[in-house]
Amino acid sequence: MKALVVGGAGFIGSHLCDALAELGHDIVCVDNFSLGTRQNIEHLKANQKFAVYEADASAKEELDRIFEQESPDYVFHLAANSDIQASAKNPDVEYQNTYTTTFRILSCMRKYGVKKLFFASTSAVYGDKRDELLDENTPNLSPVSYYGAAKLGCEALISAFSYMNEMEALVFRFPNVVGPRLTHGVIFDFIRKLQKDPACLQILGDGKQTKPYIYVTDLVDAILRFMGTGKQGVELYNVGVQGSTSVIRIADIVCEEMGLQSVKYKFTGGEGGWKGDVPRFEYCIDKIQSTGWKAVFTSDQAVRETVRKNTGRG
Amino acid sequence: MKALVVGGAGFIGSHLCDALAELGHDIVCVDNFSLGTRQNIEHLKANQKFAVYEADASAKEELDRIFEQESPDYVFHLAANSDIQASAKNPDVEYQNTYTTTFRILSCMRKYGVKKLFFASTSAVYGDKRDELLDENTPNLSPVSYYGAAKLGCEALISAFSYMNEMEALVFRFPNVVGPRLTHGVIFDFIRKLQKDPACLQILGDGKQTKPYIYVTDLVDAILRFMGTGKQGVELYNVGVQGSTSVIRIADIVCEEMGLQSVKYKFTGGEGGWKGDVPRFEYCIDKIQSTGWKAVFTSDQAVRETVRKNTGRG
Repeated sequence: MKALVVGGAGFIGSHLCDALAELGHDIVCVDNFSLGTRQNIEHLKANQKFAVYEADASAKEELDRIFEQESPDYVFHLAANSDIQASAKNPDVEYQNTYTTTFRILSCMRKYGVKKLFFASTSAVYGDKRDELLDENTPNLSPVSYYGAAKLGCEALISAFSYMNEMEALVFRFPNVVGPRLTHGVIFDFIRKLQKDPACLQILGDGKQTKPYIYVTDLVDAILRFMGTGKQGVELYNVGVQGSTSVIRIADIVCEEMGLQSVKYKFTGGEGGWKGDVPRFEYCIDKIQSTGWKAVFTSDQAVRETVRKNTGRG
Repeated sequence: MKALVVGGAGFIGSHLCDALAELGHDIVCVDNFSLGTRQNIEHLKANQKFAVYEADASAKEELDRIFEQESPDYVFHLAANSDIQASAKNPDVEYQNTYTTTFRILSCMRKYGVKKLFFASTSAVYGDKRDELLDENTPNLSPVSYYGAAKLGCEALISAFSYMNEMEALVFRFPNVVGPRLTHGVIFDFIRKLQKDPACLQILGDGKQTKPYIYVTDLVDAILRFMGTGKQGVELYNVGVQGSTSVIRIADIVCEEMGLQSVKYKFTGGEGGWKGDVPRFEYCIDKIQSTGWKAVFTSDQAVRETVRKNTGRG
């Protein structure tokens, strides 16, 4: 199989490339290296079956040329703005990097007859439904972030393109994803802040924000397990883990793993970390678990393992 | 009030301009005149409170200049590709004219602090759910047309922009809209075909496609009635009528009104008129009717009245 991995040098994308390489597939990695890094894929360069294109998936002609040249069998689309906090200040980022990339990729798949897609969606499509157990049939999706809005728009595109062109699409709604090569987010921030000042940690919000964190290798495992949906149209899963972890708990774990004691926490206050942040949500993962799949790491374990790997202790 | 009507020279937009003019509002009509026509707004040109900009709402700078210059109080956004059959062949049209226009408009509202929006959405966001009674809480929206996909993406954008910028947004999901100044669709097609050949009428599909048709003045009446939602966030309504009308019934009505007898119907066959066409759907309109609002025309009456107006008999 020849796999086109868009966003393949990014945090999740590069782990997916690792797993696809392990399975012996041909891999075409497309990345604009805005969030992805060359370092993330450096170790794959020796692989004869691994090719890299520095290209922006929102640029029509560039992407078209890659599809024409490579004729992939399967497209894994992980290119997006992944920093919700950043795009809150500039929604254009989501229009360009999240929605437009998806539209261009689907248009190329339509043009070149590529029938199989994996798409990385997000819990942010639900919006702020903190008192509901969110499953794949939850109605009234009302994103509160530009990121969630763009991703929901992408899901809608995938629905129409797969219907109109007989595609098989696998869509996962991710919770927070953590692990090695993380570039932003609360764990990343806490480590960086504590490296600068090991006595005091500023925490956005009241620290009670509580979300499930999935370990990146668990996620990649699920992607590969479900990629052959075997049916036309969209197969959608909430991908989750056992439990969830509060921001204060994350701070505690980071301090423990960094060997820091009596760190003073300073809270900026308020329920969410920033406007558009959903302070807590709970996923129903019955659908994916009913297939027998289960994440290896719980949410707390995923956080701890991430701290270890990102502080060189793992 | 100063109203910015984007798509104001189009079929629905121009009727909305008429109604706003009647109420004495200042009106800024923005249209790229791709589907809208100068003829639709010709009669409004004498009105001192009516201004027209020939501009494309997907063009960032152009739209920005209009917002800066006009400082509208309320934006009515009716600009979109409205021809589903056409965009089935070229999804770029929806990306540009339906999604991008909405993104640009919302970005300008954010920049210039405009807090009130009306948005024309569509039954096509649901996808093909022919055996369900569709209401505002129906889950799993799965558009089968690029048009429906783009509009659902717009609804998602409105959700996030209204949350992030304290906007009041009114969203109507329209069924088929008919009336004077119609530019395409089954009634329009039938009249044109019968004017060419009054003996024989080609009908796409099996003719059993059955949908609700709302008369444009009923729709405009509802827009104006609900435009002051009085609450932050999105207020969403399915706007509908009593009954629905099959394509064969439409053919019969067109023939009756054109005074044609024993016209031979030739069916192209199949359930839908074209791929991406939803052959029938049924709307639950309890929510809007619970407010006391009701369309004047039933679906059959709306069709008949439209034939009369568009054949100069009304």
